[in-house]
Amino acid sequence: MTGLFAGTFARGGAAAAVSDDAWFRALLEVEAALARAAAAVGLVPATAADAVTAACADPSRLDLARVVARAADAGNPVPPLVRALQDAVGERDAVAVHVGATSQDVVDTALVLLARRAIAEVDADLAAAAGVCAALARTHRDDVVMGRTLMQQALPTTFGLKAAGWLAGLDGARLRLAEVVASLPVQYGGAVGTLAASSGAGVAVRGALAAELGLVAPAVPWFTVRLPVADLAGALGAAAGVVATVAVDVVLLAQSEVAEVAEVGEGRGGSSAMPHKQNPVAAISARACARRAPGLVATLLGAMEQEHERAAGAWHSEWPTLTDLLTTVGSAAAWLAESLRGLRPDVGRMADAVAAAGEGALAGALAEALTPSLGRGAAHDAAAEATRHARDTGRSLAEVVAVRTDVDVAAVLAAATPDPGEAGAQVDAALAEHEQLVEGAP
Amino acid sequence: MTGLFAGTFARGGAAAAVSDDAWFRALLEVEAALARAAAAVGLVPATAADAVTAACADPSRLDLARVVARAADAGNPVPPLVRALQDAVGERDAVAVHVGATSQDVVDTALVLLARRAIAEVDADLAAAAGVCAALARTHRDDVVMGRTLMQQALPTTFGLKAAGWLAGLDGARLRLAEVVASLPVQYGGAVGTLAASSGAGVAVRGALAAELGLVAPAVPWFTVRLPVADLAGALGAAAGVVATVAVDVVLLAQSEVAEVAEVGEGRGGSSAMPHKQNPVAAISARACARRAPGLVATLLGAMEQEHERAAGAWHSEWPTLTDLLTTVGSAAAWLAESLRGLRPDVGRMADAVAAAGEGALAGALAEALTPSLGRGAAHDAAAEATRHARDTGRSLAEVVAVRTDVDVAAVLAAATPDPGEAGAQVDAALAEHEQLVEGAP
Amino acid sequence: MTGLFAGTFARGGAAAAVSDDAWFRALLEVEAALARAAAAVGLVPATAADAVTAACADPSRLDLARVVARAADAGNPVPPLVRALQDAVGERDAVAVHVGATSQDVVDTALVLLARRAIAEVDADLAAAAGVCAALARTHRDDVVMGRTLMQQALPTTFGLKAAGWLAGLDGARLRLAEVVASLPVQYGGAVGTLAASSGAGVAVRGALAAELGLVAPAVPWFTVRLPVADLAGALGAAAGVVATVAVDVVLLAQSEVAEVAEVGEGRGGSSAMPHKQNPVAAISARACARRAPGLVATLLGAMEQEHERAAGAWHSEWPTLTDLLTTVGSAAAWLAESLRGLRPDVGRMADAVAAAGEGALAGALAEALTPSLGRGAAHDAAAEATRHARDTGRSLAEVVAVRTDVDVAAVLAAATPDPGEAGAQVDAALAEHEQLVEGAP
Amino acid sequence: MTGLFAGTFARGGAAAAVSDDAWFRALLEVEAALARAAAAVGLVPATAADAVTAACADPSRLDLARVVARAADAGNPVPPLVRALQDAVGERDAVAVHVGATSQDVVDTALVLLARRAIAEVDADLAAAAGVCAALARTHRDDVVMGRTLMQQALPTTFGLKAAGWLAGLDGARLRLAEVVASLPVQYGGAVGTLAASSGAGVAVRGALAAELGLVAPAVPWFTVRLPVADLAGALGAAAGVVATVAVDVVLLAQSEVAEVAEVGEGRGGSSAMPHKQNPVAAISARACARRAPGLVATLLGAMEQEHERAAGAWHSEWPTLTDLLTTVGSAAAWLAESLRGLRPDVGRMADAVAAAGEGALAGALAEALTPSLGRGAAHDAAAEATRHARDTGRSLAEVVAVRTDVDVAAVLAAATPDPGEAGAQVDAALAEHEQLVEGAP
Repeated sequence: MTGLFAGTFARGGAAAAVSDDAWFRALLEVEAALARAAAAVGLVPATAADAVTAACADPSRLDLARVVARAADAGNPVPPLVRALQDAVGERDAVAVHVGATSQDVVDTALVLLARRAIAEVDADLAAAAGVCAALARTHRDDVVMGRTLMQQALPTTFGLKAAGWLAGLDGARLRLAEVVASLPVQYGGAVGTLAASSGAGVAVRGALAAELGLVAPAVPWFTVRLPVADLAGALGAAAGVVATVAVDVVLLAQSEVAEVAEVGEGRGGSSAMPHKQNPVAAISARACARRAPGLVATLLGAMEQEHERAAGAWHSEWPTLTDLLTTVGSAAAWLAESLRGLRPDVGRMADAVAAAGEGALAGALAEALTPSLGRGAAHDAAAEATRHARDTGRSLAEVVAVRTDVDVAAVLAAATPDPGEAGAQVDAALAEHEQLVEGAP
Repeated sequence: MTGLFAGTFARGGAAAAVSDDAWFRALLEVEAALARAAAAVGLVPATAADAVTAACADPSRLDLARVVARAADAGNPVPPLVRALQDAVGERDAVAVHVGATSQDVVDTALVLLARRAIAEVDADLAAAAGVCAALARTHRDDVVMGRTLMQQALPTTFGLKAAGWLAGLDGARLRLAEVVASLPVQYGGAVGTLAASSGAGVAVRGALAAELGLVAPAVPWFTVRLPVADLAGALGAAAGVVATVAVDVVLLAQSEVAEVAEVGEGRGGSSAMPHKQNPVAAISARACARRAPGLVATLLGAMEQEHERAAGAWHSEWPTLTDLLTTVGSAAAWLAESLRGLRPDVGRMADAVAAAGEGALAGALAEALTPSLGRGAAHDAAAEATRHARDTGRSLAEVVAVRTDVDVAAVLAAATPDPGEAGAQVDAALAEHEQLVEGAP
Repeated sequence: MTGLFAGTFARGGAAAAVSDDAWFRALLEVEAALARAAAAVGLVPATAADAVTAACADPSRLDLARVVARAADAGNPVPPLVRALQDAVGERDAVAVHVGATSQDVVDTALVLLARRAIAEVDADLAAAAGVCAALARTHRDDVVMGRTLMQQALPTTFGLKAAGWLAGLDGARLRLAEVVASLPVQYGGAVGTLAASSGAGVAVRGALAAELGLVAPAVPWFTVRLPVADLAGALGAAAGVVATVAVDVVLLAQSEVAEVAEVGEGRGGSSAMPHKQNPVAAISARACARRAPGLVATLLGAMEQEHERAAGAWHSEWPTLTDLLTTVGSAAAWLAESLRGLRPDVGRMADAVAAAGEGALAGALAEALTPSLGRGAAHDAAAEATRHARDTGRSLAEVVAVRTDVDVAAVLAAATPDPGEAGAQVDAALAEHEQLVEGAP
Repeated sequence: MTGLFAGTFARGGAAAAVSDDAWFRALLEVEAALARAAAAVGLVPATAADAVTAACADPSRLDLARVVARAADAGNPVPPLVRALQDAVGERDAVAVHVGATSQDVVDTALVLLARRAIAEVDADLAAAAGVCAALARTHRDDVVMGRTLMQQALPTTFGLKAAGWLAGLDGARLRLAEVVASLPVQYGGAVGTLAASSGAGVAVRGALAAELGLVAPAVPWFTVRLPVADLAGALGAAAGVVATVAVDVVLLAQSEVAEVAEVGEGRGGSSAMPHKQNPVAAISARACARRAPGLVATLLGAMEQEHERAAGAWHSEWPTLTDLLTTVGSAAAWLAESLRGLRPDVGRMADAVAAAGEGALAGALAEALTPSLGRGAAHDAAAEATRHARDTGRSLAEVVAVRTDVDVAAVLAAATPDPGEAGAQVDAALAEHEQLVEGAP
C-alpha cells in the first residue's frame, strides 16, 4: 500500500520492513548465508560462497523482473530467483547456490528474518509509547480521575494508575514479542526434510546457517508444523490488543463531554465541515489499525493445518497475511506513540469530575455505616434508596445524609473524601518493573 | 501489492479495480456526480457542476501528492481532495464542490462503486470457471468416478455430477454477488446525517446522486449501520468458500496416488528440486487466496459496531480490509478459472478405480440380500464380517460371496454393478439452471 | 449452556430452539418426513411410513441414551438413530426408515430446520426491538440531540433520526434473515449424491421431502458446497453487527457524563460495591453476545472448503458453531429488545447539550459568511482561529463574533440556530418503509 | 454441551474442567482464598476466614439457584454469590467475605484457575499423543515413506521423521501452554483498581492471594489490559493448529488410494450405508474440533479493546469464548491421542510406493549427471523432457535412461536409490529433545 491510505495503514517502520523490496533482500540474504554455511562445513569452495554472497549483495545484477514474472507460475519466487543467481555467478560458482535446499527453506527463513526486522520497528514504537506512559504515570501519580466501569463513573482512581496500567500492557506486549523473536528458527530440510541433497552434512549446514543469521537451529524442519508462525501471530495479536485498549481510553477520555485529555497533533484532526472540532486522529487511527489484527491472526492459525511435507495453499497464504499483520500492528503502534506524545491531560477537569462524583463515595460510606445495624444487604439497599431519594428531590446526597440520625454523619461524610487507596504504591511498582525492562534491554 | 507476490495474490482484474488509483478515480467520480446532482435539483449552477465534472475527469490537474500527504492527518483523503478540487475549479465554481456533503458520504459511495467494479471482475472469473464446469458436466455426464466420503472411497458417482456440484456452487455464488451489487446504496447525509447543509434539498440530491451512479437511495444514511458492507463481506466470503471447495477437489484428485485429473498450465507447476513433479499450481493458489477471506470477513463484521454518527476507527478499518477481500477473492476466482481451463480428467483411471472398488457395492448388495432373513442390523454386520474375511484371506469379496448359500449369489453380484443412480438426471437439471442463469444475464 | 452464564449468553428463544433436545426432534422430523415422502412417490407402503412417523413423534419409545453413546464413534448421530428407529418400528415397517438416505441428508436437513426455527426466535426479538425504535423515532421525531462523529460533538441532529437509523438497520437485518430462510434447501442425495439407493425415484423423493418440510429442492446435493450455511452465517453476522451498533450507542449515551438515555430494568444494573451506579446491563449484554458472532462466522466460512462427496472434519465443525452462532445472535437480539424497552431518553438533557454546543454551528456559520471575502480555505481557517481565540480567552464564540466587522453578525448568529435539516422527512421515510415491512409480514 | 454432540465436541477432560459446576467451585475457591489472604495480612479474624472457607467448600449450603437466577441481571454471577455467602456465614463472619474486592477480581481469578485446570487436561492428552509419536519415531526411524509436497509425491523420507515432526509440534505446543500457565496472574484491585476498600493492605492481600492460589501477583490490576487472556488464546490456538496438522496427515495417509496408515478404534468408523468403509473417525473429529479454535481466538483478541476500568461487553464475551476454546482444544487433543493410539502404519505399502516412485529420484539423478555438460538449467529441462518421454511412451524412466550415452548410466541408476539422507539423525535429535522435556516435567 503505497498511496492513498498508506499514511494511515502503513505508518511506522514495519511496513517498509516487509515491502516487496525487503522480501527480495531477505531471500537473497538467506541464499548468501546458505552459501557461506555450506562453505563453512566444507560442502562448497569458499570462493564460490563469496561469489554468491557478492551477487546477493547487489540485486541490480539479477534479473528481478524475470523473477517476479515467473514467481506465480512456480508457486513461489525461489525457483526463478535461484535460476537468476546461478546465471549471475556463472557455472563454476553455481555449486554454492541453494545448496541442498528447497524453496520453502529459503522462503520460511526469509519470512523469519523479515518478521524479526519488522518487529524491531514495532517494538521501537511500543517502547516510545511505553516511555510516554511511564512519564505520565510519574507526573500524574497522585492526580485523581474518575474510575469508570461499564462506561459509568464509579469511584476515583488516579490518572497515574491509568497510565501505569497502559504501561504494564505495553511492556508486557514487548516482552512477548522479544521472547518470540529470540526463539525464531531457521528452516533447512531440503525437498522433503531429510537433507538428502546435503551430502550428509545437512544438520551441520543447518547449524551453520542458524549461526550466520542469529536464528535457532531446530531438531527437525518445521515445514508443516507452523509453531513459529503461530508464535508471531499470537504475540502480534496481543500487541494489537494492548494498543487498542490504550487507544480506546484516549478516544473516550477525549469525548467532548469528558474532555479529560486532548490529543494535540500538528495540523491533525481538523474537520472540513466542522472547523470547531478537534478529533483524536492518532488514537482513532491506532484503533483502526489494531482491529485488523484478530482476523489476520485467525487466518494464520487456521493455516496451521498443513499437509504432509509441504502444504498446498495454506503455506502460501501465510505470506501476505503475516506481511499485513506486521504492517497493521506496526502502524497501530506508531499511531499510538504519536497519540500519547501529543496527549494533554486536563487534571483540573479530572478533579472537578471527581468532586462532582463524591456522591458515589458517599453512598458507599453510608452503606458501610449502616451495615452494623441493618446487616450488609439491607444497608446496601438503604444507601441505594437514599441515592434515589436525593436524585428525586433534587438535593445532594450529602444534604440527605446530613439529616440522618442512624449514622455518625460526620464520619460518613469524612469517609466520602476521594480515596485513591494504594494507587500510588502500585504506580511505583509498575514504574520499577518498567525501569528493569528498560535497563535489561540491549 | 505490486511485486513479488502480486502474481499469486493480486491475480485477475479485481486487484486493479481497487488500486490506489482506482480509489482516487472513484472519489472524484462521486464528487462529480454530486455536483451534477446538486445542479439537477437546482442547488448550484449547471456550469459550475460542469466545471467540477471536468476537473474530476482529469486528475492530472489536481495536486494528488498533496492529497496523499494530508490524508492521514485528516483521518481520510476527502478533506484535502475537496480542497484540491476547489483550487482546481476556482472560487466561482467551488460552490458546486462537495455540496452539503461530509467526508463519509464520498468515501462510502466511492467504496460502493469500487466494490461494484471489482465484483464485476470477480464475477467474470467465476463465470469462466462455471462455464468450464458446465462443459465438464456435459462431457462427462456418464463417466463414472469413485465417490469419496470422509476421504475414503465410498460408492461410484459420475465426474459429471461432481462438476455439476461445482457448477451449482459457482452459479450460486454469482447470484449472491449480483443481488448484493443490485442493492448497493449511495451515501449522502452531510455532517451528522440531517442533510442540514443541503438547503432543504438533501433528500432530492440523494435521489439524484443515486440515479447518477446507478445506486439505491436509502431512506436514511447508513453511516454507522453497515449492512451494505456486511452484505459485501458475506457474499464475497461465500464466493471464496465455493472456490476453495472446488480447488481442494482438484488438488485431491490430482494427488499422485489418485491422478484422476491433471492441471496443465503453460510453464507452470514445475519444481526446481524435483523435475518429475507437476504441481496443480493454479488450484493450490486458488486455495491460498480463498483462505484469506474468512478472517477478513470477520474483521468487517466485527467493525459493524460503530459509534454515534461516525465511528472512531471501525469505519476506517473497512477500507484496507474490503480492498484486500475483493483482491483475494478476485485472485482466487482467477486462479480457479485457470485451473479448470487446464484440467485434464483421466476418465480411464477413474473407471479403473471404480472397478477396483466394486467390492464396496458388493458389500452393500450382500447386506441388502441378507436383510430379509437376518434383519437389517444383523445383515449389515454380516456384510461387514464378509468384507473383513475377504481382506484377511486375500480373496476378492466376490469370491467370498460366490460360495454363500444364504443369498441369491447371481442377484447380489449383479446388483454390485456400478450404479450411478440418478446422476445423469441431476446433471441435466443443474445444466438447465445454469443455462437459465446465463441467458438471464444482461 | 444451562447454568451460570445462560441468563446472559443463552437468552431469548433461540437457545432452546437449538438445544440437544431440539436437535433430536429435528432429526426425527426429517426421518418422518422422509418416510412420508418415500410413501408419496410409492417407494414404501403408506402404513410403514405412518409407523415411522408415529415412532418419530414419540421419542420416548426410542433408546436415545444409546444413540448419544454411539454418536461420536459413528462420526454423527444418525447411524445409531436409524438403528433405534428400525428397532422401534419392527422389521416390516423398517423398509420406510431412512429410505435411500445417507447420514448427511438427515443431519443437514435437520440443521436447516433448526436454523429456521431459531431464526424465527431471533426475528421476534429483532422485531420487538424495531418496534421500539419506530416508536422512539415517531415520538422524538423533532427532539434535537447532538450528533457525534469520531466521538466528538459535531452538529445537532434529532433523536428521532438516530432511532430511525437503528430502525432501518434492524429492519434490514430482518429482511436478510427472511430471504435466507426462504431459500433454505433440503438435503437428499444418498451415500455419494447419486440417489442410487432410491430405486430411480430419488429426485421425486427429494421434491416430496422438500414439500413436506417447506424447503427448497435443489438440482443437486450440496454436501460439500455449503452456500446455505454461508448464507445463514452471513445474515446472522450482519444481524449481530446491527444489534451491536445500536447497543454501543445506548451504552455511550448512557455514560455518566452524557446521560441522555438511561436503561431501566427491574432489579437490573445495580453494583454490589457501588450502590449509586445504574449500569445499562441489557445493552452491555447485547454487545457481549453480538461480538461473539464474527469469529463464529469466520469458522463457518473457513469450513466451506470441503472435500469430495463428504468432508472429513469441516462438515462436523458446522454443528456446534452454527448452534453457538444462532444462540449468541438470539441472545443479543433478546437483550437489545429488553434494553430498548427500558430506554428512557432525557430530551431536556439532549437539548441542553445542543444549546451548549451552539458554538459549533456558529463556527460553521462564520466560515460560511467569510467565504465570499476570503475564499473557502482561508475562511475555514479564520473560523477555526476565532474558535481557538474564544476558548483561550474564556468567552463564548458568540461574544467573539459579535464584535467582528467583516461579517453580517446578525445573520451569522441567526444561522447558528440548531438546524435539524431534513431529519424529520427522513424519519418519516424510514417509518413508512417500516410500516410496509410490518404489513408485508405474514 | 451435554448430549448429542458432546461425545465429539466435549471429549477429554477439559470440558468438565470448565463446566458450570467447575465455574461455581472456582468462584468459591477464589472467595475462600481471598478470605484467608485477608486474614493472613490481619484485615479480618482468622475465625471469620475459616467460616468463609468452610462455606465455600460446601456449595450445598448456598442458594445457588438464586445466584443463577440473578447473575444475568447483575451482569455477572459474583454479586448474588457474595450475597449468598454472606447469608451462609452470618453477619459476624461476613466481614471476611469478598474483602476489598470487586466482581471482576473474583471472575478473572476464577477464569485463570479454570484455564489452568483445563489446560492440565489438554496437556495430558497432548502428552499422550506425543508419547505415541515418540514411539512411532523410534520404531519407524528407518522405514521409508514417500514425502509429499503440494500433495504430490516428491522424494522418499522416513515415517520416523514424519512422526518426529509431529512430536516436535506437540512438544512445542505443550511448552507454550506450560509457559502461559506459569505466568497466570491473580486479579485483585477493588472497584476501580486502587485497592481503596482494602484498608491500605491491598497490595499485601494481592500477594497473599496469589500465594494461596499459586498465581503471579502483578504490579497493577489487568482489568482492561487482557494479556493473560491473549496468552491463553495464543497458546491454545497454536496447540489446535498442531493437532490439526497431525490429524490431516493421518486422514490423508488413510485415504483409500494411499492406505499407508489405518486408524483402528473399537466399534468406530463404520458406515451405515457402506459396511465396507473404515473411516478414521478420531482424526476426523480432531480436525473438526481443532478448526473451531482460530475463530474463538480472534474473538478473544478482538475483545482486548476494553474501556476504562471495566469493559462494557468485551470482558463478558470472554467467558463463553474461552470456555469454548478450552473445550474444543481439549477435545481435539483427546481425539488425536485416540487416533494415534489406534494408528496402524503399513510399512510394506509405504515401501512399495517409494519403489514405484523411484522414477522421481531417477529424474533428479539424471539432471545432476547432465549438469556438467549442459549447465544446471538445461540439464533440469532435459530431465523433465526424459520424464515426459517415458510417460508418453509407457516405459519406465530407467529404461529411457539406460539407453542414454551422455551420462554414466550405472552411476545415475545407483544414485536413484531411495536416500533418506539424515532422517535418522534428525529423529534421534527430536527424541532426545523429547526425553529432556519428559524428564523435566514434574
